[in-house]
Amino acid sequence: MAQVLVTTVPFAAHNRLPLDLLDSLGVSYEINPLRRRLTADELADMVGDCEVLIAGTEPITKKVMDAGRGLRLISRVGIGLDNVDLVAARERGIEVSYTPEAPAPAVAELTIGLMLSLLRGVHTANLRLHGGDWQRHMGRRIPEVTIGIIGTGRIGSRVLRRLAAFGTPRLLVNDLDPRPNLVPELKLEWVGKDTIYREADVISLHLPMTKQTRNMITRVQLLAMKSDALLINTSRGGIVNEHDLYEVMFAGHLGGAAVDVFCDEPYNGPLKEIERALLTCHMGSMSVDCRSRMEIEATEEAVRLFRGLHLECRVPEDEYEEQGQS
Amino acid sequence: MAQVLVTTVPFAAHNRLPLDLLDSLGVSYEINPLRRRLTADELADMVGDCEVLIAGTEPITKKVMDAGRGLRLISRVGIGLDNVDLVAARERGIEVSYTPEAPAPAVAELTIGLMLSLLRGVHTANLRLHGGDWQRHMGRRIPEVTIGIIGTGRIGSRVLRRLAAFGTPRLLVNDLDPRPNLVPELKLEWVGKDTIYREADVISLHLPMTKQTRNMITRVQLLAMKSDALLINTSRGGIVNEHDLYEVMFAGHLGGAAVDVFCDEPYNGPLKEIERALLTCHMGSMSVDCRSRMEIEATEEAVRLFRGLHLECRVPEDEYEEQGQS
Repeated sequence: MAQVLVTTVPFAAHNRLPLDLLDSLGVSYEINPLRRRLTADELADMVGDCEVLIAGTEPITKKVMDAGRGLRLISRVGIGLDNVDLVAARERGIEVSYTPEAPAPAVAELTIGLMLSLLRGVHTANLRLHGGDWQRHMGRRIPEVTIGIIGTGRIGSRVLRRLAAFGTPRLLVNDLDPRPNLVPELKLEWVGKDTIYREADVISLHLPMTKQTRNMITRVQLLAMKSDALLINTSRGGIVNEHDLYEVMFAGHLGGAAVDVFCDEPYNGPLKEIERALLTCHMGSMSVDCRSRMEIEATEEAVRLFRGLHLECRVPEDEYEEQGQS
Repeated sequence: MAQVLVTTVPFAAHNRLPLDLLDSLGVSYEINPLRRRLTADELADMVGDCEVLIAGTEPITKKVMDAGRGLRLISRVGIGLDNVDLVAARERGIEVSYTPEAPAPAVAELTIGLMLSLLRGVHTANLRLHGGDWQRHMGRRIPEVTIGIIGTGRIGSRVLRRLAAFGTPRLLVNDLDPRPNLVPELKLEWVGKDTIYREADVISLHLPMTKQTRNMITRVQLLAMKSDALLINTSRGGIVNEHDLYEVMFAGHLGGAAVDVFCDEPYNGPLKEIERALLTCHMGSMSVDCRSRMEIEATEEAVRLFRGLHLECRVPEDEYEEQGQS
């Protein structure tokens, strides 16, 4: 049985360094043979006596940890920790690390791309023209609209900085920790989420999945938005209630929505019937450079563990507190 | 018969000011009843004794001008003049005006959006996921790639300035008139077009259609490009040979192409069978603000003519020389 189980896929597809790091240390590894996100049961069956999980977004539950009695470290390739039962890990003496900085530039860049597609109707024009139907869409430019950013951490702040190059839209921002001088070259209006729902033409979410953010946007919030508002979720599925989003869009509300993250992935639900829903496959961090950096950082943490060195990317205490409260 | 024939559609859809300007002067007008780009024959039948054409990209040929004996001004809503026989207009004493500045911000912004979609595989992910197929695409970020911009005038230079916000890719640029200090904050490499074809990961065209640029990119140039290169054309159909583009992409060459402009529009050709072709409907200038500005500027020029005032947006002499040579 391998010492390291890599559950996230693809892995080392564009840069072999993570595997080279393990090879050079003589550490054995196995890569998720199902090549897709595992369920908790599948992972519990697979974990065996491995010591380190190099993990994606699959559920790492008590059951998984109890099945994996040799587990010493869960090293997340990425930032979200909603899939890891942190409290259970601590109770079992299992360390948890993550790579919070690495994905941010790729997610921010994808977000701008989705925003421009939604604003100009690129996704619907492409769908239709591939079906032989030519219909010109009258769009809007970034400086013409009011943009609301909910969550101004690593990713949200990068989205704001990239927006500055397009001229100055009205920018409404919301965060638990408002920082008036976050992007000095931009005039930011720090407002409540309800103001964003009501007044923004484009709303983009850059939040972790927590007890507080799960179902943060349901039918009520969606209907509070402008009838032609554009909604972008590159954070986590479930922050926007998928069923409600489908229902309000089916009924004609919202100008469009870009959804990169879903409750159940791979997604195969009813949003695919909505032409103006721009759907991508949890690809926020999927750029060669960011993905490689995430994989290398997560693997380096495993290497530190095997060499008996101090871990450098431990999940901070407030993440444990957050989950402990919920 | 109306004094003004508006051939470009949609017109005044989001801002009635152009029609109000004509109404307030008591000028009669008619808007293209076919609601699509006209052929030369259709326009010749329709032109009657109107004095001003507020024109789109339909062919305004000798035949049209000979049919329209009362024609005094062709006022183009937009910048391209490849559809207007300038020499024939001059011979007949018909003035030609255009709106060269107004479309540029909208075209530049769409170009960035198309670039981000191509780089991250947004268009293919969306097409597939709407068909129930989840396939994560490993993309690249702007700072990871070499970008080649051919044509650094009003639009190309704006594309470059917006790219600066995403970090610094290697930037290869080509123009008949190289300006080393065009975007002071960026390090630009002024190179020949062949270097761009060979070395760029993303190639974007920002050129007028002229005798020199028609079929500038055919099979030979396409095959000189990297096998995973991404090509963007928001300029004019025919600068890239459509048939050759289809053939090389069908054979598996190029990572993707964004095509907003076609030889015959509405387009309904074989590129629609290529999944990684991102197809839009000549929507470069289709943002509410830019489109309104273009329509207002073109109508103001008509108003100046009727009031006997000096025209302010006359096409410059070098455009006549350009066409005269060809």
